[in-house]
Amino acid sequence: MNAVRLYTPGPLTTSAAVKAVMQCDVGSRDGEFTARVRAVRAGLVALVAPQRASDYSAILLPGSGTYAIEATIGSVVPATGRLLVMANGAYGDRMAAIAARLGVPHDVVRVADDCTVEPAAVESALDARPEVTHVAVVHCETTTGILNPLAAIADVTRARGRALIVDGMSSVGALPIDMPALGIQYLIASSNKCLEGVPGLSFVVAERAALASAATVARSYSLDLEAQSRSLDADGQFRFTPPTHVVLAVAEALDELHDEGGVTARGARYARNQRCLVQAMRAVGFRPYLPVEVQGPIITTFHQPAAPFVFETFYQRLHDRGFVIYPGKLTAADTFRVGSIGQLFPRDMEALARAAQEVLDALGIRLRAA
Amino acid sequence: MNAVRLYTPGPLTTSAAVKAVMQCDVGSRDGEFTARVRAVRAGLVALVAPQRASDYSAILLPGSGTYAIEATIGSVVPATGRLLVMANGAYGDRMAAIAARLGVPHDVVRVADDCTVEPAAVESALDARPEVTHVAVVHCETTTGILNPLAAIADVTRARGRALIVDGMSSVGALPIDMPALGIQYLIASSNKCLEGVPGLSFVVAERAALASAATVARSYSLDLEAQSRSLDADGQFRFTPPTHVVLAVAEALDELHDEGGVTARGARYARNQRCLVQAMRAVGFRPYLPVEVQGPIITTFHQPAAPFVFETFYQRLHDRGFVIYPGKLTAADTFRVGSIGQLFPRDMEALARAAQEVLDALGIRLRAA
Repeated sequence: MNAVRLYTPGPLTTSAAVKAVMQCDVGSRDGEFTARVRAVRAGLVALVAPQRASDYSAILLPGSGTYAIEATIGSVVPATGRLLVMANGAYGDRMAAIAARLGVPHDVVRVADDCTVEPAAVESALDARPEVTHVAVVHCETTTGILNPLAAIADVTRARGRALIVDGMSSVGALPIDMPALGIQYLIASSNKCLEGVPGLSFVVAERAALASAATVARSYSLDLEAQSRSLDADGQFRFTPPTHVVLAVAEALDELHDEGGVTARGARYARNQRCLVQAMRAVGFRPYLPVEVQGPIITTFHQPAAPFVFETFYQRLHDRGFVIYPGKLTAADTFRVGSIGQLFPRDMEALARAAQEVLDALGIRLRAA
Repeated sequence: MNAVRLYTPGPLTTSAAVKAVMQCDVGSRDGEFTARVRAVRAGLVALVAPQRASDYSAILLPGSGTYAIEATIGSVVPATGRLLVMANGAYGDRMAAIAARLGVPHDVVRVADDCTVEPAAVESALDARPEVTHVAVVHCETTTGILNPLAAIADVTRARGRALIVDGMSSVGALPIDMPALGIQYLIASSNKCLEGVPGLSFVVAERAALASAATVARSYSLDLEAQSRSLDADGQFRFTPPTHVVLAVAEALDELHDEGGVTARGARYARNQRCLVQAMRAVGFRPYLPVEVQGPIITTFHQPAAPFVFETFYQRLHDRGFVIYPGKLTAADTFRVGSIGQLFPRDMEALARAAQEVLDALGIRLRAA
């Protein structure tokens, strides 16, 4: 495979050291490996609940982030409960689809892709639905890159005594989240986004008291949060074969996050990347889809220019130059996306915009600066 | 981490080249990657249905092998159907536990850990239960290493018009399985056993006609065989983020399996390993648990010697010498297990037995040749 730089929402460009630790086969039940598992669990809790680490369990699950979403919904919302999904993108919609498939009682409040989930909307949805026990929301919607006001949403759910499930897939590692301070019960993430590990592992950080009182049996045998947490607590072993190489990579990635200066420093780098990206892409003539006030630092959606611009050609020509961008996920507008996370720096953002300009020049397409 | 040799049922010792291809970050929706996904799918089907490849779909699922078991049971047995699990070990028991958790109607016929699932037992179980639509069996039970007579079992299920689900986790890649010839509808495997890839990916090879007529909606949103097959068919993309590095490793591992001479050559090497292991371990004084007639070539269970032998001490001392073995999984007898798969050769089996002798000598334990 040719070496490329990934401007995607994950899998992303990881450091050489993260990849290098995968050059080792380890026994999944061996003490050296389970010690690494314990370090990853402790490192995750330290990121999101540093003051009350013993009250939270970092539950590692092999597989995609969506598995961890399904494991959470399927393990913690009882048949007598009700889930309210506040959605403003494909990942919010997916949470509702999961609840529907599992037969978990639920409601969905859907706002437009380019609007944030407003605390007032959560408030009125809850006031209209006293039977709701759990609220689910996506922190940063990768569909567009929009950032929802998590702290204000959490204030509402906490004040009304509802449990809060947060899809932090695109934010954990880059944006500060203090679970006990905010009153979040379940926070879901994956190995291959802002933690800058490789894909293949997903996480749920759960408030232990909430998990213990969930009063339901998980709908799935494999995706059972409580059972997995118990197994990891007991001896550091997964219930089923873990992706050992991926776990080693994530352990290294967490060390590198610490070395970079933690979540604040990493988030600041991503924010610089994102600002630099928009400025450079605007100069080429690409217009961002979201208003700047709601744009997160993780991924930016751009409008596709009018014909003769063809995304597939643009994508392939950039790819040939070593730059991998990401297709759009909106039905209402022709867009594409560019990630600003991973081992990328402002100079990489400028390099991408230069390459985009070269591709447009070669194609004889001239845009007006946006 | 220290370099060790893994005498385990997987994760196992992989080749340097398999690990080396993981030194590359690729886009999960990029054409170079999806081409690799297609190659892996085609390679898997070529292993188990070479004459009728277009009638079978290799469905790749991120995560542990157990996920693929659950995906299959949850996706193909309708609420109006009934699953018969023929169990002779922990992995058969687990299939029954999955069916129970999912509310899939099922029966279990359990035979002892050291007995094979006999075709006659399947026959009488089916004759007594006309409502059974699907039969599930483990080919090689990793619990003990016992090998079930798959061809004879498949003859029974086919003659009686029942669909057959085979857990081939520990056999695919090492033992020849011809799905169309045997009449197997669903064959489940994982990346990190006899295919000699790294862990993090599981597989179901499904007969397309059976999958299409499954007449049920998967109980899980994530673990939905039909939806995943459709997505992979459409554009080579996973529904959710794939473990890209693991997929690249599996692609390389399939090439190496071909280079070794295919399933026959690999199975022959494992069989040589296993015979060599037993001979060398017997000379030290370790007694195999299974009679030789039912012992498979993948993993061998040995009785633990009487006190003062302590498994944990023995394990750790071997580990310190670079040899990782595996604990037992039987409740009825104190045992341990040694794998003969992965990048291991007869000389490695002899090296393990020599190390075991050295450890016993150092501990002042003298066994009688078994």
